[in-house]
Amino acid sequence: MAHINVPEGVPGIRSLAMFRPDTGQHLYNLAQVLLRGESPLSAADRELIATYVSHLNNCMFCRNSHAAAARCLYSPEDSHHVDEVLADMQQSAVSPKLKALLHIAHKTQILGKAVLPGDIAAARDLGATDREIHDTVLIAATFCMFNRYVDGLATLTPTDAAAYAAMGERLSEHGYVTPQPALKI
Amino acid sequence: MAHINVPEGVPGIRSLAMFRPDTGQHLYNLAQVLLRGESPLSAADRELIATYVSHLNNCMFCRNSHAAAARCLYSPEDSHHVDEVLADMQQSAVSPKLKALLHIAHKTQILGKAVLPGDIAAARDLGATDREIHDTVLIAATFCMFNRYVDGLATLTPTDAAAYAAMGERLSEHGYVTPQPALKI
Repeated sequence: MAHINVPEGVPGIRSLAMFRPDTGQHLYNLAQVLLRGESPLSAADRELIATYVSHLNNCMFCRNSHAAAARCLYSPEDSHHVDEVLADMQQSAVSPKLKALLHIAHKTQILGKAVLPGDIAAARDLGATDREIHDTVLIAATFCMFNRYVDGLATLTPTDAAAYAAMGERLSEHGYVTPQPALKI
Repeated sequence: MAHINVPEGVPGIRSLAMFRPDTGQHLYNLAQVLLRGESPLSAADRELIATYVSHLNNCMFCRNSHAAAARCLYSPEDSHHVDEVLADMQQSAVSPKLKALLHIAHKTQILGKAVLPGDIAAARDLGATDREIHDTVLIAATFCMFNRYVDGLATLTPTDAAAYAAMGERLSEHGYVTPQPALKI
């Protein structure tokens, strides 16, 4: 049961956006522009960064929902990247540049000051641009927020894989649409 | 020097909102509604929670700027709370309820799952409501994001106390107004 009286049966962040819509609206708007707006990183790669950080923060709701979204957004031949990165990022088949960005995301997840000039230089050597580095750090920082918000209030975390598959399809097709108080799905 | 090419001489989060205004806008809107919008917690207490979490995350820019804002927002006889909480929260003169909320903020800063039912029950026993608990967790989570964003990209952190005093006055008077690309202060 959640620590506060959120709508029953509504999972994770959606229940919190319904509890306080005036903050929820900005959180959903941020997620939409950051994960679906214009960026040199594909939407699939951005969802993978969100998934990886949520995994490092042990947030099952965010990890499973964004992993499902990433699986939908990658082409069928690349969707195996998601489970590979969750199992062992460095041994995964993602590009060296994306590995360097995922490493920066990991450093950001530890603490801002853990991101060292050498981490940035390594990503630049593999072709990462300012904007790719910026978006990686902001996605990682943003999920350090979402993970703490969702778990810090003990919101509902479904355990059924089919629930996440449905969320992944919705997120990949419609993006981050602020939940309306009347809707519970 | 920042890790990416942000406007020179502009400190912290402002330089990042100018680098990418479409995300900056939502971040400033979130800060404004969360720290200045309707809440059972005073704006001063909310700035204190932001300051405390930034201190725990060792983010000097956010710690010093929000400490300065809190000092302006508390009445003159209460503004000593800010330095007391930074020195030793449990020994400070803030109310037992606010101590219990600051403790929840600290647990959120560690990780979402670190917030235990006993932490929530202790705050409730001292009169904390659902909305106060919610706002505390969301402020703490949000500053886990801002701190990582600002430090993860190594943005300019002024070392001059007068610079923070001026920021504190601006934030207490005008709140969180999205920086315009043409403005550098």
